[in-house]
Amino acid sequence: MTHQPANHQCSAETIASVGENESLRRTISRLNASDYALVGPGDDCAVVRTEHGSFVVTTDTMVQDHDFKLEWSSWFDLGWKAVATNVSDVAAMGARPTTLVVALIAPTSTLVADLEAFADGLREACLQLAPGCAVVGGDLASGSQVVISVTAHGDLEGRAPVLRSGAVVGDMLAIGGTLGQAACGLELLMSNNDDAASAYNEWVDVQRRPQPPVALGIVAADAGATSMLDVSDGLAKDASRIARASRVDIVIDASQLIGFEAVLEGAAQALSLANPHLVEMGRPNLAAEAYCRKWVLTGGEDHGLLATFPSGVTLPRGFKRIGEVRAAAGDPTAYLRTSAAGKTTETPVTDLGWDSVRD
Amino acid sequence: MTHQPANHQCSAETIASVGENESLRRTISRLNASDYALVGPGDDCAVVRTEHGSFVVTTDTMVQDHDFKLEWSSWFDLGWKAVATNVSDVAAMGARPTTLVVALIAPTSTLVADLEAFADGLREACLQLAPGCAVVGGDLASGSQVVISVTAHGDLEGRAPVLRSGAVVGDMLAIGGTLGQAACGLELLMSNNDDAASAYNEWVDVQRRPQPPVALGIVAADAGATSMLDVSDGLAKDASRIARASRVDIVIDASQLIGFEAVLEGAAQALSLANPHLVEMGRPNLAAEAYCRKWVLTGGEDHGLLATFPSGVTLPRGFKRIGEVRAAAGDPTAYLRTSAAGKTTETPVTDLGWDSVRD
Repeated sequence: MTHQPANHQCSAETIASVGENESLRRTISRLNASDYALVGPGDDCAVVRTEHGSFVVTTDTMVQDHDFKLEWSSWFDLGWKAVATNVSDVAAMGARPTTLVVALIAPTSTLVADLEAFADGLREACLQLAPGCAVVGGDLASGSQVVISVTAHGDLEGRAPVLRSGAVVGDMLAIGGTLGQAACGLELLMSNNDDAASAYNEWVDVQRRPQPPVALGIVAADAGATSMLDVSDGLAKDASRIARASRVDIVIDASQLIGFEAVLEGAAQALSLANPHLVEMGRPNLAAEAYCRKWVLTGGEDHGLLATFPSGVTLPRGFKRIGEVRAAAGDPTAYLRTSAAGKTTETPVTDLGWDSVRD
Repeated sequence: MTHQPANHQCSAETIASVGENESLRRTISRLNASDYALVGPGDDCAVVRTEHGSFVVTTDTMVQDHDFKLEWSSWFDLGWKAVATNVSDVAAMGARPTTLVVALIAPTSTLVADLEAFADGLREACLQLAPGCAVVGGDLASGSQVVISVTAHGDLEGRAPVLRSGAVVGDMLAIGGTLGQAACGLELLMSNNDDAASAYNEWVDVQRRPQPPVALGIVAADAGATSMLDVSDGLAKDASRIARASRVDIVIDASQLIGFEAVLEGAAQALSLANPHLVEMGRPNLAAEAYCRKWVLTGGEDHGLLATFPSGVTLPRGFKRIGEVRAAAGDPTAYLRTSAAGKTTETPVTDLGWDSVRD
C-alpha cells in the first residue's frame, strides 16, 4: 500500500515563496509591543522613548553574494556602504546620525588587513557623510559567508519624526539626491564589459560607495516634509510604500525623471551597443532609453530621500519635484505618468523593485 | 627561473591567527570617535548621549554551527536566546532593557512557520526576561547560513553606568545567577548520549533558553556595584576582563564554587561513566569533578552577572560572594585559589574560555 505523506513539505510556505514583505508582516504580528516605542516597526527607523527624550534606530544587513560581491567591492567599500545605507535611514526620519554598532561575520581566513580596510571605510563614511557620528560597539564572529549587520542611531533634536504615513492629498512629491546611478553601476559591473565599466566608473563608484544626501533629511524636516523615506529598493517600490502607509495614490511624472536618465545615457549606450555578453547571459538587449528608465525607476542604492511637501512650500535646495499625491482611487498605488503623441498614460509601478529575500 | 612569490600570503595574519580580541583592538583603533559616545567600545554596552539624556546599546550575533545548531535548538529557542544574550549585556550596565532590533539572515528555503516560531521566542523572552522591552525593528535577508544579529537598548533611568573598569582593591567579587549549567547542557548535547541528555534536560534547557538574572543588574547598580559584566565567555575569561579594565588582580575562591559544581555532578557522572562516545570523539575522559570545575570556570552561556562590591556592602539577595579584588602584582590577572592538604595554590586562569572567532 503506497500513499502520499501526510505532511507534504513541498507545498510548505518558505520565506522565498511568500517574499520579504509578507514574511515580515507575519513575524511582526507575533511580537509584543515595547513600552518604550514611540514609533514601532515599519518605518525607516523606530523612535524609542528614553527617560528624558528619545532616539531613532534602524538596522540594515548586507550579505555576501546577495548584496555585494568581494570581486566588485573592496573591504573599504563595504565599510563605507554599511555606514551609508544606515545613516540614510536615520536621515529619512529627519534625525541626525549619532552612533552605529556593527556586527561583522567573516570566514576565519579573512585577513586582518581586510578588517582594517573595512574599519577605514566605516571611519571615512562617518566623517564624510555624517560628521560627529561613529561606531561605538560591535561584534566579530566567524561564518562561511561575509555578513555585515549595522544598527544606526540618531537624534531628532526636538523635531517630530517624518514618517512614511504623513503624505496628504495635494502634496508635491520630491527627491533629494540622485536616482539610478548605483543601478547603472551595478549593470556595468555585471556586464563584464571592462571598457564600459572603466569609461563610466563614476556610476560604478556610486554603486560601491553611495553618497546619500544625509544633511537633506533635517533640511526636509525643517521645511515641513509630510512624509519621507530613503530610496533603497527603487523609486517605484518606495513611492508605493509612502502611498500605502499614507492611504493615498502617488503619481510620478516621467517627464521630471528625464534629467536623471540623461546623465546615464552614455553608459546605457555603451551597454546597449556592446550586447553580446548580455545576450549570452540571457539578459534582454534593452535599448539605451529603456535601460535609463529602468535604473531611475527601480534602482535603489543611491539612497536618495523621497519626500512629500505641502503644495505651498518652496522646495528646499537639493530637492526636485517629480510628482504629486492624490486621493487613492482604490488600493493605494504609485503610478508612472507618461505622455506620447498627446496621450497621457498612467501605469501602476507598485511591484517593481528589489526584494531582499527573493532577489 | 623559479622563485617564491613576493607576496607570500601564507604568512599573512588572519582573524583566526590573531584571535578575536586582537582583531577587534586593531579595528577599533582605526575608528573615529563619536561626538555622542559617553562610553565607547569595550564595555558590555556603549552609552550614547541624546538631546536630553542617554541610552545604552549593545550588539551580539549568533552564527549557525558556531553558536548554535539547528539540530539542537528549535527556532523558538533561537529567538529566546537572541534576546537573552543581549538583554543580559544591558543589565550588566545597570540599565533596564527597552528595545531590540533584530537582523535575521536565513536560507530562502526557510519555512515561514520557522520564522513565526522565532518571533514567538523573541516575544516570550522579552515578556519573561525583560518586561516592557520588545523588538521595534529588524531586517530579513537571505544567506547560506542562519545568522541572527541583535542590537539591544536600555535606559539607565538616572543611574551611572556600571563599567568593567571600576573594581577597587579590597572589593568583593560576586556572581548573580548560575554558572556552568549551559556548558553542562552543551556537553550533554555533544555527547550523543540521549539517556544522559534526557535525564539532565534541565541543563540542556539552560543551554537552549538561558535565564539571565536581568533584574539583578539594576539591583547591583543600586547596591553600589563598582564593576559588572555578564558572563558570556566563562567566569575565568570574564573575571580577567574586569581585572584588566580595572588594573587589579582578581582572586576566585574555588571553595565558593562548590555549590555551583555540586548541582552538576549527576550529569557529570552520567557523562563520565558513559565515556565510549567521548573517547571515540577524541575528547578526554574527564572525571566527573573535573567536568564540573571546567563548566563552572569556563562555561559562559548562563549569562550570570559578575560584579564587584565595596567590602562593607551587604550583598543584595541573588548575589553570592566568590572572591576578592586585590592590587595587581604585575599584569592584571584573574587567579583561581584552591586548597588541598593544607596548602593554598593560586593559578592564573586568564586565557581559559571562548573566542568567538577561533572556536
